[in-house]
Amino acid sequence: MNLSRISQICILAFAVPGFACQSPSEAIQPNFVVIFCDDLGYGDLGSFGHPTIRTPNLDRMAEEGQKWTNFYAAASVCTPSRAALLTGRLPVRSGMMGPERRVLFPDSPGGIPEAEITLAEMLKDKGYATASVGKWHLGHLPKYLPTNNGFESYFGIPYSNDMNQINKGPTKELLSPARVEYWNVPLMRDEQIVERPADQRTITRRYTEEAVQFIQSNQQQPFFLYLAHSLPHVPLFASDDFLGTSRRGLYGDVVEEIDQGVGKIMETLTELGMAENTLVVFTSDNGPWLPYGEHGGSAGPLREGKGSTWEGGMREPTIFWWPDRLKSGVVMEMGSTLDLFATFSAIAGAEFPTDRVMDSYDLTPVLLGTGTSPRKSMFFYRESKLYAVRQGEFKAHFITKPVYTGRPENETYHDPPLLYHLGKDPGELHDVAQLNPAVLQQIGKLVAAHQAKMVPGEDMLAARGEKDF
Amino acid sequence: MNLSRISQICILAFAVPGFACQSPSEAIQPNFVVIFCDDLGYGDLGSFGHPTIRTPNLDRMAEEGQKWTNFYAAASVCTPSRAALLTGRLPVRSGMMGPERRVLFPDSPGGIPEAEITLAEMLKDKGYATASVGKWHLGHLPKYLPTNNGFESYFGIPYSNDMNQINKGPTKELLSPARVEYWNVPLMRDEQIVERPADQRTITRRYTEEAVQFIQSNQQQPFFLYLAHSLPHVPLFASDDFLGTSRRGLYGDVVEEIDQGVGKIMETLTELGMAENTLVVFTSDNGPWLPYGEHGGSAGPLREGKGSTWEGGMREPTIFWWPDRLKSGVVMEMGSTLDLFATFSAIAGAEFPTDRVMDSYDLTPVLLGTGTSPRKSMFFYRESKLYAVRQGEFKAHFITKPVYTGRPENETYHDPPLLYHLGKDPGELHDVAQLNPAVLQQIGKLVAAHQAKMVPGEDMLAARGEKDF
Repeated sequence: MNLSRISQICILAFAVPGFACQSPSEAIQPNFVVIFCDDLGYGDLGSFGHPTIRTPNLDRMAEEGQKWTNFYAAASVCTPSRAALLTGRLPVRSGMMGPERRVLFPDSPGGIPEAEITLAEMLKDKGYATASVGKWHLGHLPKYLPTNNGFESYFGIPYSNDMNQINKGPTKELLSPARVEYWNVPLMRDEQIVERPADQRTITRRYTEEAVQFIQSNQQQPFFLYLAHSLPHVPLFASDDFLGTSRRGLYGDVVEEIDQGVGKIMETLTELGMAENTLVVFTSDNGPWLPYGEHGGSAGPLREGKGSTWEGGMREPTIFWWPDRLKSGVVMEMGSTLDLFATFSAIAGAEFPTDRVMDSYDLTPVLLGTGTSPRKSMFFYRESKLYAVRQGEFKAHFITKPVYTGRPENETYHDPPLLYHLGKDPGELHDVAQLNPAVLQQIGKLVAAHQAKMVPGEDMLAARGEKDF
Repeated sequence: MNLSRISQICILAFAVPGFACQSPSEAIQPNFVVIFCDDLGYGDLGSFGHPTIRTPNLDRMAEEGQKWTNFYAAASVCTPSRAALLTGRLPVRSGMMGPERRVLFPDSPGGIPEAEITLAEMLKDKGYATASVGKWHLGHLPKYLPTNNGFESYFGIPYSNDMNQINKGPTKELLSPARVEYWNVPLMRDEQIVERPADQRTITRRYTEEAVQFIQSNQQQPFFLYLAHSLPHVPLFASDDFLGTSRRGLYGDVVEEIDQGVGKIMETLTELGMAENTLVVFTSDNGPWLPYGEHGGSAGPLREGKGSTWEGGMREPTIFWWPDRLKSGVVMEMGSTLDLFATFSAIAGAEFPTDRVMDSYDLTPVLLGTGTSPRKSMFFYRESKLYAVRQGEFKAHFITKPVYTGRPENETYHDPPLLYHLGKDPGELHDVAQLNPAVLQQIGKLVAAHQAKMVPGEDMLAARGEKDF
């Protein structure tokens, strides 16, 4: 990606010691670590209310940092959600969301378009060391892999851990007990397959080890580490140390192993004296995969899960940690994985694209406790259609559709839209459209303005037929 | 109550410095504060996962103390739940639960039987100063009031704050906005009415002030303070300082005012140097009153609410706080309000009744981190029938019944019972009865043993016709 098209402006709009800059090169350059889970539900951490999953490290991270209770993934399934996090753009713009296929598959010839600028590209251009560890799912063919999208190294499974199923039964029946050899997924280092099928029993531990090693090796240079765990997406696997240890069963074992890994990363940063210079963000790509029962997570008090534009599909348990820098506490402001782009750009003094529509807001005022979130709305797309919009505390649903029921999933159009006050009614139980005509009108205007600027990208997910590796 | 029938044994079974005793008089005598909410749901505190209710004081209390995630009220409605907390006995034994009326009403001639020994009676006999502040709901006629049941003083509303409704509309329609004069409830000091209708807008603040004052006045003598907030039971009221301030609307305003009150109590104890000698317990009487929509709370990830024997009806957000004494952390062991009796008895070296069937377990091993909970089961009664039983991680439902639907609420009998693994499935979504015949058999034995010893008390709730005051 050629970054020369990006205008060289300092986008910091607020003056805070250590953050304000005249030119990007004068900005401080802290490290960034993004820990991104797969299918973890809003209610699956102790600090987010789970009664039987123990997450002492994440709880401490939330206690010392910021616990965000209104933070969204940009899509309710893997591929578009990941594309959005790494580009700061709604996936419908990049073509990483389409009406035919929800995500990329091992037979997909497509992937993240070359024209997209990734977080890694932006930061690498600013002198950052970059590494991608874990699930990728933005295209497994060479040109789409992390190493061709701004990451200097890659170690992980390039798509979902339930793909390339080689046993003929339906996934659900293969889960108890799941066996590594049922899913012929590759483990890659950079662009080479180093293990196949990947031994998923140790994958969480190995991702953590890789992350820790990367941190240890990059003490002299600012870095961006994107650690995208393959789990707790089904099929679930845990190391021997965790198997059978949690009250929540295998799902809890998996989450508790991830929690331990988060603890190791915090510990490494602290021991090396790097914690005060590293912003760590923990979140997930979409809500829990509910039809998998005990193998899927929980959205806690929120409605529905993965695949859905109800809150449970896209609101994520999110924590920001940056000792001595963040104003710690509970944050009820709105934020999104889309916003990491503008936020990291602002903090690092890196160049923010001005040649394209961005959907990314700089959250640093909230992080530092100096202001409110510039994100005042959130657009909920499904299969490239706008299903719902949140503006302030209100969310309007124009279309709803059941998810993953195994039955035909018919869309229901709502006119007037369903309207919920998410502050008073986070569970989206009490439709208040009748009582709030003015709110509906305002949301209507917001949608019209949004759609006037919307140019969907060419669908990168639709094509099929390419052989896997 | 004559305590002479109680055998004079030291019931401390474990040796911990400061707790072990040869005779009761040698035991330490810390203060006890029980803060008991009304209709607060499992999911209504920040630390229990609510996205838009701010409870920084309770969150800190949980962080410094113990956050219990498997702690139960002994009934799913007010009167029986309160009777159980104060007696350590299932309310069906004391007759404070019956098939005809769920709770006491202003026309009820009944109340807590004289033969019952209350926590206050037990502790008063041991030299404790005792005070009841807030909702009582164990009988409003003089002989049933706190001052005749072990409490040296009383200040509060003697029954539910939605009783004595003098406006003719259904409660639900009177809530927006609720007006103090719609409910002609008395505020009492000891046995006198001092205000009527009680000004509920300031009731939470005044309860807190009363509690703080009691603490300040009892620095030389061990005390037991039972602070039973009238709220967040509908109708909801908040002080001017809180009205309209929370993202969760009026319900959030109310909970946040209670949270502030908890903060004031912690602050008072700390400032007076009494925190290390005071065990504070925060919990609620039953789950959220769901049919009231935004005026009712949330059970978070749990099923159903108030009135129900599903988890949402009886599992409560519970916190134990005792600086420098408790082993702080998240506790997933089972506990119940029933257990406060044995626990306080053990800690204070007070006499534990041996002349009756008790349902109370000493939780001090869990509080101190020296052992597991002696509570291995929980019985879920509704209207004096055994609806469900939890044994270890499994819960069997023999009968289920919808609650407060406004439609006839028919019982459904389950044979085999519905069976849920509450560790793996806290939301009671996946019936695993077919897979666990041995578990069902074990639970069957437990029930048989329980029922063999069950002698229901004379129903104290059924009678009606007495004039209110």
